[in-house]
Amino acid sequence: MQKQKLLINGERLKEELERFAQFGRTENNGVTRLSLSGEDRAARGYFRKCCEDLGMAVKVDDMGCMYATLAGTENKPPILIGSHLDSVKKGGRFDGVLGVVTGLEVVRTIVDHKIQPKYPITIVNFTNEEGARFEPSLMASGVLAGKFDKAAMLQKKDSEGITFVEALMAIGYEGSEENRLKEATAFLELHIEQGPILEKEASTIGVVECVVGMACFEIEVTGESDHAGTTPMSMRKDALFATNNLINETRKRLSAMDSDLVFTIGRVNVYPSIHTVIPNKVVFTLEARHKDMDIVNSFKDFVQGLPHQGLNEGCEVKVTKLWERDTVWFAPELCASLEQSAETLGYSHKRMVSGAGHDAQFIASYVPTAMLFVPSINGKSHCEEELTAWEDCEKGVNVVLDTVLKLLNK
Amino acid sequence: MQKQKLLINGERLKEELERFAQFGRTENNGVTRLSLSGEDRAARGYFRKCCEDLGMAVKVDDMGCMYATLAGTENKPPILIGSHLDSVKKGGRFDGVLGVVTGLEVVRTIVDHKIQPKYPITIVNFTNEEGARFEPSLMASGVLAGKFDKAAMLQKKDSEGITFVEALMAIGYEGSEENRLKEATAFLELHIEQGPILEKEASTIGVVECVVGMACFEIEVTGESDHAGTTPMSMRKDALFATNNLINETRKRLSAMDSDLVFTIGRVNVYPSIHTVIPNKVVFTLEARHKDMDIVNSFKDFVQGLPHQGLNEGCEVKVTKLWERDTVWFAPELCASLEQSAETLGYSHKRMVSGAGHDAQFIASYVPTAMLFVPSINGKSHCEEELTAWEDCEKGVNVVLDTVLKLLNK
Repeated sequence: MQKQKLLINGERLKEELERFAQFGRTENNGVTRLSLSGEDRAARGYFRKCCEDLGMAVKVDDMGCMYATLAGTENKPPILIGSHLDSVKKGGRFDGVLGVVTGLEVVRTIVDHKIQPKYPITIVNFTNEEGARFEPSLMASGVLAGKFDKAAMLQKKDSEGITFVEALMAIGYEGSEENRLKEATAFLELHIEQGPILEKEASTIGVVECVVGMACFEIEVTGESDHAGTTPMSMRKDALFATNNLINETRKRLSAMDSDLVFTIGRVNVYPSIHTVIPNKVVFTLEARHKDMDIVNSFKDFVQGLPHQGLNEGCEVKVTKLWERDTVWFAPELCASLEQSAETLGYSHKRMVSGAGHDAQFIASYVPTAMLFVPSINGKSHCEEELTAWEDCEKGVNVVLDTVLKLLNK
Repeated sequence: MQKQKLLINGERLKEELERFAQFGRTENNGVTRLSLSGEDRAARGYFRKCCEDLGMAVKVDDMGCMYATLAGTENKPPILIGSHLDSVKKGGRFDGVLGVVTGLEVVRTIVDHKIQPKYPITIVNFTNEEGARFEPSLMASGVLAGKFDKAAMLQKKDSEGITFVEALMAIGYEGSEENRLKEATAFLELHIEQGPILEKEASTIGVVECVVGMACFEIEVTGESDHAGTTPMSMRKDALFATNNLINETRKRLSAMDSDLVFTIGRVNVYPSIHTVIPNKVVFTLEARHKDMDIVNSFKDFVQGLPHQGLNEGCEVKVTKLWERDTVWFAPELCASLEQSAETLGYSHKRMVSGAGHDAQFIASYVPTAMLFVPSINGKSHCEEELTAWEDCEKGVNVVLDTVLKLLNK
């Protein structure tokens, strides 16, 4: 006889997500909950109370990250579940908070069923994942993983000149370095996909194998700003036409590299941008992302060679690398476990990659880590229209619960 | 025996141009003399004094245009020489003022040589040619020619909210409508080329046959602003890539129309212009100019058809015509006379078109009109580097003098 699977309380999950959406709710049912703002403090306070009501001990580290721990019966590194409570300006009700509420719902289900966990279970809220108020994004997890310098991060300023450390102290969340996450048995982060793939392929659970590698460049094209009426075509140095050539070459060459390569020219500024003046300068960004670093490296080589393709129309072309990151692969055994849980629960699932960055990519450097995605309707996120079906959220949390139970039984 | 040609005083011309450059001179030897500014008032006052010292009567019309007239021996419509004294911000020392100083130097030469002119000779300073403080450009000549509505022009505001009529009264140049230019035997405007052609072809005098026709459009491309990392290439509606297609088609098709067609994509704005976000909107202008209105009309047809070329990448493409103007042809007998004067004086010369707009194009609607150009070094104008060799200025004025003398002897 097949044993009945333990499931979470979908109604409670939905209510909890709605309750967190009150902290910074916008006119159009989105959320503005910038890191270390009053709204963030309120959400943190409510999260702390929920955890303490469950008998969990809450600690705060020196970057303001919160760790709520349900004690285990054995003295082992905890199983970590979580994400972040901050949002972008006019963001959605699911990005980040879903991963934290997942932790709450998993612990509540375990407590409801009077399960005595062998391992401690810790719910984490990473500070400033979005980087919307204080750049860079993934700030606290970056410090934990040794990727960012703490002293530099504390001095980062928001648009009003307030430093990160001032804001941290202002909301009373400057904790202790000794409370930092040091080790864990596993870290599981459930997140919305923020893309259209799961919805398009009618799949509910995305098992994320990696966060893809990427490189981002700035390209500056300098020509001459002559009079649109008096300068013959053959005597122009039109920075926009040179840029047009570079975009053509980029699209042709990158499209041929690999169909999974995504590349974007996102920031574009044309100068002087007057209808009767030939543009003398265009500055644009070009970034590309792929899980295979050989392809990312081919992209980098291509961009570095762009100025020498004879496409410049007499203009100067300068390429500057803004940043890059290698692909981060998640723990294969955790990915397999999540996949198996989805299968057992009868949910449609697929392996995929994350094109966006997440705290999990930094934590993966010292903790066995995996992520799973649930579908974003129309692929939208970081906007008030961000939406994931309640039943998909519920299924995602059930997959996490099932994998946590398997870890507890190891 | 060949008669010695009457020539102007090149040294005096140079000194006068330098003197006018004092009114609003910039750090880098350019000029900022916005219409109806304090600098413009000072230049106007100096011009009036120069004219009165020559025994000329100075009148001002209701748009602030100045007319300084040397009486003729017969009661005939005057021969008109002139241009404008206003400049753009950080403009040059030649644009406009050269045409006014030409009038002064021609009259001075005539007075020096005690010539009694049969026709009155009038030097004109048109108000607000540049449109740099009060849009549109060619404002006063447009009112004179019935192209612009006077009441609407008087209410045009500068960036500080001051109306044109307020500024006109503030500098004491609100004259009488009865003083407007009503008829003239001829109007001659010497101007710098503002382009590179004369310099490139080592020609000193450009006899301008027309101001070319043009049309200017705004094109708005609307797509979707999805996440750069999570949206597969095949599922994007990238407004920048659609724009790139439209620019390709524009360059291919317009280059094939006629080698003299000049076309420019000058103003370009990309939204939201964030490196990690696929652009959801691009708004750009596309203008083209040619003397043959059939070609301008072909251009217009092409642009109107752009949205229907299958180049849109899933985006919406909207075309709006901003404005257009027909080619204005100058008086053939005056062009021939200027050409003959240049030839007689032994100056290199060529027939050409004006790609830029000038007051002469409006005055041509009711007065026999012609323009001539002298070379702009590196084709530059509307900037502090604007430069024309003194000897080229002198030759240009000599051509005007020679043609004026021929008109006086008619």
